[in-house]
Amino acid sequence: MSSVWPYTVPGIPDDEFIRGDVPMTKREVRALTICAAKLAAGLTVWDIGAGTGSLSVEAALFTPGGRVYAVEKNDAGCALIRANAQRFETGSLEVVPGEAPDVLADLPDPDRVFLGGSGGRIENIIESCATRLRPGGVLVANVIGPRNLVRLLDSMATVSFTEPHGVYLQASRLEKLGREEYFRAQNGIWIISAQKEVAS
Amino acid sequence: MSSVWPYTVPGIPDDEFIRGDVPMTKREVRALTICAAKLAAGLTVWDIGAGTGSLSVEAALFTPGGRVYAVEKNDAGCALIRANAQRFETGSLEVVPGEAPDVLADLPDPDRVFLGGSGGRIENIIESCATRLRPGGVLVANVIGPRNLVRLLDSMATVSFTEPHGVYLQASRLEKLGREEYFRAQNGIWIISAQKEVAS
Amino acid sequence: MSSVWPYTVPGIPDDEFIRGDVPMTKREVRALTICAAKLAAGLTVWDIGAGTGSLSVEAALFTPGGRVYAVEKNDAGCALIRANAQRFETGSLEVVPGEAPDVLADLPDPDRVFLGGSGGRIENIIESCATRLRPGGVLVANVIGPRNLVRLLDSMATVSFTEPHGVYLQASRLEKLGREEYFRAQNGIWIISAQKEVAS
Amino acid sequence: MSSVWPYTVPGIPDDEFIRGDVPMTKREVRALTICAAKLAAGLTVWDIGAGTGSLSVEAALFTPGGRVYAVEKNDAGCALIRANAQRFETGSLEVVPGEAPDVLADLPDPDRVFLGGSGGRIENIIESCATRLRPGGVLVANVIGPRNLVRLLDSMATVSFTEPHGVYLQASRLEKLGREEYFRAQNGIWIISAQKEVAS
Repeated sequence: MSSVWPYTVPGIPDDEFIRGDVPMTKREVRALTICAAKLAAGLTVWDIGAGTGSLSVEAALFTPGGRVYAVEKNDAGCALIRANAQRFETGSLEVVPGEAPDVLADLPDPDRVFLGGSGGRIENIIESCATRLRPGGVLVANVIGPRNLVRLLDSMATVSFTEPHGVYLQASRLEKLGREEYFRAQNGIWIISAQKEVAS
Repeated sequence: MSSVWPYTVPGIPDDEFIRGDVPMTKREVRALTICAAKLAAGLTVWDIGAGTGSLSVEAALFTPGGRVYAVEKNDAGCALIRANAQRFETGSLEVVPGEAPDVLADLPDPDRVFLGGSGGRIENIIESCATRLRPGGVLVANVIGPRNLVRLLDSMATVSFTEPHGVYLQASRLEKLGREEYFRAQNGIWIISAQKEVAS
Repeated sequence: MSSVWPYTVPGIPDDEFIRGDVPMTKREVRALTICAAKLAAGLTVWDIGAGTGSLSVEAALFTPGGRVYAVEKNDAGCALIRANAQRFETGSLEVVPGEAPDVLADLPDPDRVFLGGSGGRIENIIESCATRLRPGGVLVANVIGPRNLVRLLDSMATVSFTEPHGVYLQASRLEKLGREEYFRAQNGIWIISAQKEVAS
Repeated sequence: MSSVWPYTVPGIPDDEFIRGDVPMTKREVRALTICAAKLAAGLTVWDIGAGTGSLSVEAALFTPGGRVYAVEKNDAGCALIRANAQRFETGSLEVVPGEAPDVLADLPDPDRVFLGGSGGRIENIIESCATRLRPGGVLVANVIGPRNLVRLLDSMATVSFTEPHGVYLQASRLEKLGREEYFRAQNGIWIISAQKEVAS
């Protein structure tokens, strides 16, 4: 257990992470993404396009005895992920510099996959994930563009996934404005998840 | 640990709960509410206006060794909560029939409070919670109307809470429409949380 | 000018239209769609997939001296459009039973096109519209699915349209709930518009 | 008719207005606000808290033969409104420097009132508007904070208005992101409108 986050539920505030200029998965999105993944003790997790590593860190915190592989092609991102892993004392988080699907070959088969950035190769990545995921394993993707959403849904339909669940999330945050409050909008995002079918 | 929900993260699908005609906190709202509460092992939780008990059940699952008191004035609701507690094997969940703040007097001081229904007595309930919450404890409220939102923010400002965090959440769910998909909108909801100040 | 809607701006309330079981473009969406179309006196308008005709009626009201062709394949829809045209005294509205792009061949070239329903033939319809729209003319499409959104954007990119403007609109309506109010969510919709390029 | 906006419908793009640092009502909000006001030829309009004057300009364009009074306390705002009035050739727009309700006393009774900024005096302004609005006249308010929303609804309930219509509008705009698109969220806003009751 992490002394920095000694809780039984996800939802670390954004400003507790070390951040650079790398875009970061916001708390609300991160929490729902982690929840959609049905994490459990001992699981092996891939976080593809890990960015600042905020999702990887939470994944590691909620898979005690497991292993999280944070795949990130950007050097600054890799350094941030390491810094955040250290800050949250997540010994089970390993940074994998490079691009998916290329670097996935050397990783152990996952029980869970987070897909946050695809570098334009969604179809290949989904195919790799579908092949490598253990039966009953879960894929959760965060998508901000409709084009990637459709490519994702199409790719998932051609391989052995169950019918996907999907949520379009629009969260706005309370802010003070003098004596009044208002709600500052965050951009909407799609959170899409599906389970790899168990062969019968 | 529950054999029905053997995971380390919240987010039980809505249709895994037994439901009657009682309105139910939707999965996305429930997950973010649970996450906002910073649950931990051994905590005492009040769930005021517990409805079907879906929030109480998840609260119980994520406070092992703790205790959850589900306050609900509606008889059908109380029966549903008991049924769901049984279904999810949450032995630490106790149904408290009646209305807040009246029935709160007999409960042990809480570390966490969920406020979902107030029956028009928000100010009294917030005052009770502020008095009874242990220092550093967390209150999380779900509000669907602007009038209750303002009453809640005003009440919280008069007692010893930290500046509240707030999110307006609008979630839409993926549904099939022939060969196309669309996103069915759920009503927006405010999730407001604050910590009871620790006396210096 | 219509005695039923004697105003200089669009935005007829939904319940002033005669409705059957045909899905109807909601007031907020309709108003923004009409506004995006930059209507003017004397214009020729196609409304493809006219449904109840609510958009056609408003288009007719705001193109005095012009002509609106409401293309609708569904018989019940055609009858509703005629009833609504009569109710709002829009003599310039003509119902065109049948499917696009087939029935478009017999219509005069348009200055404005509304695209609300495509029956799976978006690419063909966009091609027809691009060919037939007068230079500087405007196309406005309402889309509820991401798949159709991408097909629309892709189709528009292959023909002579300017870079599209797009809005994702999520509107929720004030409703009473006892002494409290809440906001009932309508499903989100994309409103996409572009102008046909003027040959140089 | 304006040669800059020769159309029969509202919806002037934001970048066609001269803007300084003054916050501006966005196109989508402005269009729905104008539409909610049921403008007509010859009407007298107050725009209270006119800001850049974008709403005033559109109000003037759609009330030919009428008169629009743009009330604005900020000097830079007043200059912007005049500049925009000139740009859009709206001769019927008059800038009224000062604060509501003080400066309202000298204005002719309105048929329509837009309320965009209240400087904390909502109740007084609503009372003035209710007194001064001609029977059957329409008030439309834009509100970004829940506190002002409730004060507005409460104020309107104490005077002679019909039951208000209200929309919470969340619009996101299409933007390019490399070869992908995404939708950039604007902050949500409430558009509340009601009619002054006609004495029976």
